[in-house]
Amino acid sequence: MDLCFLSASEIVDKIKKNEISAVQVAKSLIQRINLLEKKVKAFIYFDKEYFLKKAKDSDDWRLSGKSLGPLHGLPVAIKDIFKTKDMPTYFGTSIRENYLEEEESDVTKLLIKAGAIIMGKTVTTELAYFDAGKTTNPHDYLRTPGGSSSGSAAAVAAYMVPISIGTQTAGSVIRPASYCGITAIKPTYGIISRKGCLQQSFLLDQIGIFSRNIEDLSMCSSILSKDNINNDLKIKEPKFIFLKTSKWDNIEKEAKKLFENFINKISKNIIKIENPKFLEKAYDYQKIIQETDMAHNFSYFYEKYKEKIGKKLIEAINRGLNYKAKEYAIAVENMNLIYNQLTDTLGNFDSIITPATTGFAPKGLDFTGSPEFCSIWTYLGMPTINLPLIQNSERLPLGIQLVGRKYDDKNLLKNANWLFKKHKIN
Amino acid sequence: MDLCFLSASEIVDKIKKNEISAVQVAKSLIQRINLLEKKVKAFIYFDKEYFLKKAKDSDDWRLSGKSLGPLHGLPVAIKDIFKTKDMPTYFGTSIRENYLEEEESDVTKLLIKAGAIIMGKTVTTELAYFDAGKTTNPHDYLRTPGGSSSGSAAAVAAYMVPISIGTQTAGSVIRPASYCGITAIKPTYGIISRKGCLQQSFLLDQIGIFSRNIEDLSMCSSILSKDNINNDLKIKEPKFIFLKTSKWDNIEKEAKKLFENFINKISKNIIKIENPKFLEKAYDYQKIIQETDMAHNFSYFYEKYKEKIGKKLIEAINRGLNYKAKEYAIAVENMNLIYNQLTDTLGNFDSIITPATTGFAPKGLDFTGSPEFCSIWTYLGMPTINLPLIQNSERLPLGIQLVGRKYDDKNLLKNANWLFKKHKIN
Repeated sequence: MDLCFLSASEIVDKIKKNEISAVQVAKSLIQRINLLEKKVKAFIYFDKEYFLKKAKDSDDWRLSGKSLGPLHGLPVAIKDIFKTKDMPTYFGTSIRENYLEEEESDVTKLLIKAGAIIMGKTVTTELAYFDAGKTTNPHDYLRTPGGSSSGSAAAVAAYMVPISIGTQTAGSVIRPASYCGITAIKPTYGIISRKGCLQQSFLLDQIGIFSRNIEDLSMCSSILSKDNINNDLKIKEPKFIFLKTSKWDNIEKEAKKLFENFINKISKNIIKIENPKFLEKAYDYQKIIQETDMAHNFSYFYEKYKEKIGKKLIEAINRGLNYKAKEYAIAVENMNLIYNQLTDTLGNFDSIITPATTGFAPKGLDFTGSPEFCSIWTYLGMPTINLPLIQNSERLPLGIQLVGRKYDDKNLLKNANWLFKKHKIN
Repeated sequence: MDLCFLSASEIVDKIKKNEISAVQVAKSLIQRINLLEKKVKAFIYFDKEYFLKKAKDSDDWRLSGKSLGPLHGLPVAIKDIFKTKDMPTYFGTSIRENYLEEEESDVTKLLIKAGAIIMGKTVTTELAYFDAGKTTNPHDYLRTPGGSSSGSAAAVAAYMVPISIGTQTAGSVIRPASYCGITAIKPTYGIISRKGCLQQSFLLDQIGIFSRNIEDLSMCSSILSKDNINNDLKIKEPKFIFLKTSKWDNIEKEAKKLFENFINKISKNIIKIENPKFLEKAYDYQKIIQETDMAHNFSYFYEKYKEKIGKKLIEAINRGLNYKAKEYAIAVENMNLIYNQLTDTLGNFDSIITPATTGFAPKGLDFTGSPEFCSIWTYLGMPTINLPLIQNSERLPLGIQLVGRKYDDKNLLKNANWLFKKHKIN
């Protein structure tokens, strides 16, 4: 059996039942990494000896009969912007002097406490913005995996790890998940602690999880979240709203056709709503906040290493430095206003359904793709999930994005499970 | 019996028991208003015929045997920045063209639903900032009542109404309560709806209540608040922290002496903490947010009626227009950071205790006094209460301010009740 193809839930379950060991899992993943990492380049740091040792420790613990955490023996890959004591943390830039951290991020702490093994650090774009890292798309090495959580998405898609952690400030979880053809969740703003994670934007940064099915997302969310997202995924027939935003026309022709075909398949569960005008400004508001916050949070890099920083980041910070406080204040205030207007307008619904990206993974590695189908949901702090339910003739994936009500991640997971079980591509 | 001297709770209780009628209460208050309003000038709008008619309707309802709301027959005065269908709403400025509103604010709606009678609109400073209205201090007509909720505080202090509503963006509830010698609460940010209330600052505006005892504050909070602040005021011995902020030296000599005497009386319930450095910037952050938000929310008045607006407001808006987005972003981010640092530093405590104002009500009506002992708690969104427990030789009042943990208004009310019952001035 190729253990690398098991899901996170299956691994946890089989280890608990003593059917497999953490070392066996680690060995299978290492084999897979040996096979593919040269092409995929998902990791910025991976030490197989460390991984094997941690797996051995985990097995010893289990065999001694001590009580096991809910993720005992599960390997998890972590985006390179989370601080980890045992591994370097580069934030996707070579200019960082103190990349050996004394601090363990809250996310990795919670995972370790639950029994998981932090198996490596994955490639991020530079400071989690748009300047790409080395990672490629496992479906086509000449295409971008998306960003900024490039390595976390690609590693899971390439079966080099069952589950991984990323972050999203515009579209950095859902977009790479869509391009790489895996499931991912970005829970409601604020319900996962960001302590020990690089801060790009206080008002926008949100942590996400990548895996290859909804059970895994649910299991890991419940470990990381302050709220109680439990594992109950009982299915009830959901009511989806297909929201055509003002960005709808930016979708690529083939993606549009395939998405509309998909929508037709579930038409009895769908209501369509055309371009609610009040949503339009949310794109600008997200941008004002993100760019201002980068100007503030990255001032050290900007001032000291300007010539060594990517062009896209420099341009964004330059814009960020020039906004007026009043513009920012309006953007902040509208977070709540627009959310309230949206839920009032949509009335009784379970999830919003939209394509996750404007198309399939773009060719080339420099451009990580457009986050425009994700960024307003990040701005509004709503939980979103990517489901890899569309494929083109070249077998490139495209994600269906579900967007839930704030603090109702539980229902969103149920809706996603309903759709995923029914329309999974085999 | 002079019904105007009854508390809100007593009025509600006696009406419920058919011991007194709403009309009797209204008549007593009208008599009091006839006696004092020429001096105090607490009301911008008061129509005694309307008040009597509403009181009569309230009594008719009660006598018909229909079920009564928890505030049945209780007269409440409302700051002139809440929209009311039956009365004009000037926002403290004569330049407003459409002062007859079609909308009823959420606060007045909730009060009316609970059976209360909106008996008049009270004077606010211009657009709830620092340019004073006509109201005087009932303890000394040559002194300011404080602002911006000047009329709401003065009317309750002068026994022209048992309870009233105000708002606070810096120190506009606690400061006038301190100067006027009454109790007041500004609950945790966000737990009372601001719909239909003039917006000065989305991130700072908070609604408050004035009365002459803690039971009344508790009763009214529980009606207005989304959280469940119930009426249970069981007393347990609290642990107070006396926090000497960096503004401590701005306190007037006499106020300082009397406050220290008071602190000595309850020394076994007090721990002193000197000037926590991380709090210092909160003053600037509050100012940046307030002034920027005024520049944004009052742009219509500023652009159209610049020459008719008060000098203090113009200066503040001019500053507000010049802040950079980055400065605002840092101020927003620190709201949470400082609050967390504060609760970490203080550890296990019930309430912070400080003077409510830097001294007694200043002489003259132009300057409404300094909000510097209140503004950081507004910025942090923490619930605060004023208790009129200090008096100088001229019988001028000074408030003791208690500050509670966010969303723990219930415990704050209990602490306040403990202190008020024990040290009330008779």
